[in-house]
Amino acid sequence: MPADCLFCRIIAGDEPASIMLDSPDVVAFLDTRPLFKGHTLVSPRRHVATLDGLPDALVVPLFGAAQRVATAMRDVLGAQGSFVAINNVVSQSVPHLHVHVVPRTKGDGLRGFFWPRTKYADDAEAQSYADRLRAAVEGGG
Amino acid sequence: MPADCLFCRIIAGDEPASIMLDSPDVVAFLDTRPLFKGHTLVSPRRHVATLDGLPDALVVPLFGAAQRVATAMRDVLGAQGSFVAINNVVSQSVPHLHVHVVPRTKGDGLRGFFWPRTKYADDAEAQSYADRLRAAVEGGG
Repeated sequence: MPADCLFCRIIAGDEPASIMLDSPDVVAFLDTRPLFKGHTLVSPRRHVATLDGLPDALVVPLFGAAQRVATAMRDVLGAQGSFVAINNVVSQSVPHLHVHVVPRTKGDGLRGFFWPRTKYADDAEAQSYADRLRAAVEGGG
Repeated sequence: MPADCLFCRIIAGDEPASIMLDSPDVVAFLDTRPLFKGHTLVSPRRHVATLDGLPDALVVPLFGAAQRVATAMRDVLGAQGSFVAINNVVSQSVPHLHVHVVPRTKGDGLRGFFWPRTKYADDAEAQSYADRLRAAVEGGG
């Protein structure tokens, strides 16, 4: 555990946070600067920097917890939907893997972030991206 | 399988797509209107509308695939990081669960979407959100 990791300190109880899930593998707590109230961060207890480094054994605990939190937002906060997101390295404020789970309501103003989109020059360019990624994925990246 | 589901048709091979991962449980293909080139959608083969409805048995196949695609973006596309996101219901263009995996580079301009943030009136308000969500999560939502 890096001594200077804010989320390790929260998970260890050395830093205050509004915790809503505290399991052997995963802790979830409120983001103190929420996109919308209820915005939650779900983190593995173990210090893992990004999704790349998440051990197989923690995939179900982490994403199962995110799933339960998203469902709770619908049931408890009356959210119509949810936004579940991970920033790896770029835009990642704290280098301890965390899944954002954010309650969504139609017309809440968050829709803009998925724009503008770009486009491929042609089908061949798109296929070249797919082929390169497929080779890496199948290579067991 | 709903006859009118675009992603079911892609997965069945009835609609063209640049596919990069094709496994018994999961298919990954390029978003045709990418945030950045290489932007991939990872979907369960089975028609599941949102994260809420994802069966436990598909958590590892789906998120393991997203993890491999994110790693491939770093290795193959030279991405510095990745953005991994699910829109459930709100902002969800196709109602078949899909995990966006987007290559990220510092200064690529996507950072704006996590702003502006809001804030809780006080610690008590934050705690009330955490308490309500915790009750629902622990209730086994």
